[in-house]
Amino acid sequence: MGSSEGAPAADTYPRKILEYMEGFLISKTVFTSCELGVFDVLLGAGRPLSAGEISRAVGASLDGTERLLAACTGLQLLSTHQDNGQVLYSNTEQASVYLTRSSPVSLYQSIQYSSRTIYLCWHYLTDAVRSGKNQYEKAFGVSSQDLFQALYRSDEEMVKFMHLMNSIWNICGKDVVTAFDLSPFKVICDLGGCSGALAKQCTSAYPECTVTIFDLPKVVHVSREHFVSEADQRISFHEGDFFKDHLPEADLYILARILHDWTDERCIELLRRIYKACKPGGAVLLVEALLREDGSGPLTVQLYSLNMLVQTEGRERTDVQYAALLAAAGFTNIQHCLTGKTYDAVLGHKET
Amino acid sequence: MGSSEGAPAADTYPRKILEYMEGFLISKTVFTSCELGVFDVLLGAGRPLSAGEISRAVGASLDGTERLLAACTGLQLLSTHQDNGQVLYSNTEQASVYLTRSSPVSLYQSIQYSSRTIYLCWHYLTDAVRSGKNQYEKAFGVSSQDLFQALYRSDEEMVKFMHLMNSIWNICGKDVVTAFDLSPFKVICDLGGCSGALAKQCTSAYPECTVTIFDLPKVVHVSREHFVSEADQRISFHEGDFFKDHLPEADLYILARILHDWTDERCIELLRRIYKACKPGGAVLLVEALLREDGSGPLTVQLYSLNMLVQTEGRERTDVQYAALLAAAGFTNIQHCLTGKTYDAVLGHKET
Repeated sequence: MGSSEGAPAADTYPRKILEYMEGFLISKTVFTSCELGVFDVLLGAGRPLSAGEISRAVGASLDGTERLLAACTGLQLLSTHQDNGQVLYSNTEQASVYLTRSSPVSLYQSIQYSSRTIYLCWHYLTDAVRSGKNQYEKAFGVSSQDLFQALYRSDEEMVKFMHLMNSIWNICGKDVVTAFDLSPFKVICDLGGCSGALAKQCTSAYPECTVTIFDLPKVVHVSREHFVSEADQRISFHEGDFFKDHLPEADLYILARILHDWTDERCIELLRRIYKACKPGGAVLLVEALLREDGSGPLTVQLYSLNMLVQTEGRERTDVQYAALLAAAGFTNIQHCLTGKTYDAVLGHKET
Repeated sequence: MGSSEGAPAADTYPRKILEYMEGFLISKTVFTSCELGVFDVLLGAGRPLSAGEISRAVGASLDGTERLLAACTGLQLLSTHQDNGQVLYSNTEQASVYLTRSSPVSLYQSIQYSSRTIYLCWHYLTDAVRSGKNQYEKAFGVSSQDLFQALYRSDEEMVKFMHLMNSIWNICGKDVVTAFDLSPFKVICDLGGCSGALAKQCTSAYPECTVTIFDLPKVVHVSREHFVSEADQRISFHEGDFFKDHLPEADLYILARILHDWTDERCIELLRRIYKACKPGGAVLLVEALLREDGSGPLTVQLYSLNMLVQTEGRERTDVQYAALLAAAGFTNIQHCLTGKTYDAVLGHKET
């Protein structure tokens, strides 16, 4: 059997666009591998496994499993070696650390949410861009009049969302709470603090602080039950709606991925309420993915801003836009810090 | 306003996995931009346009359009410049050439098919891997007992599929028909030749050949009406089902992306029918995306093999696997040629 190789004609071939077109194939390959537990099975076995062993352990067809494993190899999530003519698969380090369920920095929950909720919502991106409105109703048959009623349309959906937040702060949380020296702020209130992942990052980075997680009553109940241990005496809870209810007094308020859910008007309304409650000399820390001023990126944040269109009332913003919102509410001495990861930090102060 | 930059901690951050996770956001951004006609509007205007002008021309919200344009800029499909404080957008060359509807090498139809059909099918990848079966029934409510009855479940779907094939051969067709010197073969029969895109590539590359497009009657009718001009006297049609009906005698049979739809058994059955009909000294040309023997890739083809699982009864194969199918049907002197693009060529001969 002979073979020959023609010269690739890179210039006249839309390699980059074809890559973009297969982006969803790559996402779903990773999502399905996680969902079936391929990486968990390999971690648990503690030795390389054949496609047959993996397919039996995850309860999937041999043929389908073989193709999935091949694609994971191409994605460098699995590595292979030959043993007596049989191909054996192992997790790469990245897969072991980030794609197994039991890892402390697992992306598993975030992947589940992307695969089941966000992927379907994005099927309606064209409608979202046309109308300028989110597509919860089309994707899930729930009205998005009240955004968090839609997001938390069932306890199950709410817990999934909380896991999503949790898994993101496991990998980005430390960087955002140490982007600025927050040690002067002893009493911290994390508004929309959800599962408490950032609260834990704060108490770990700043030994003298206490953190109150402020969130909707049903979120607080689940967080208490599933996410925050009672032994954690420096973390407490406060039930409420931050647009309506009294905000507890604090030295520092954290708004992590909160403002990006809302319009400018709603953001300023919330920031004014915080400014009023804040102790003189206190501050507010915004944790958000920042767009560059010149519109050149980062690509991830440009995509997230479309995601906010598809799913919320909000948008991603530049540091200058966040500074304008903070200034409109009375905050001064506004600084921002890029962490080099997805989420950045903006700090605004209330004068003494 | 101050700013500072923390050092990125690349080692402890799953950059590659996060990129995989946002692959579907990138695909859908490209799909929606095409579907709304962003690139067509910019091409038609012949000058850079503002977000406001583009949003009016495509009939979409200003806010949604602005975010979409920003993401297209991040993807290097659009470029921007400032004009009197206003941002103006232009197509990059890649976008002009491959993403506008009127371009002779437009990917527009392929993108439409990916966005509307394949994207939804892939929502059920996990089920496909579990069961080892395609997911047409779950995604579209049509049984896939007869694969092409499902694919061609309406005239509209059939025409979309034909456009998809057409747009692929516009960019890869010349390479696959010139991978081998086919000039000795004067009478060519393109089995499943669909819209005739490869037939046209053959008549253009080989001035002495004639090509018969063999396909299902309803495909032939549409192809005659919409794709192949009557003036093209070197291209003719033959209606039939290549698994059941008489195959016309020819020097060369082309099977372009046909075998990847079917099981090994069905492939051999079809190849045997071809071997019988083929003139002594004739040949069969397989046009397929080839997997590497060692399982290392190409990634695109590994993903396509999962796509075949989700959508068909077939799979992608290595050159050795295709050679085995050809040999089982009697073909000899089997050669393959990698084109450097997505689709490659395998040639098998019938002895004189």
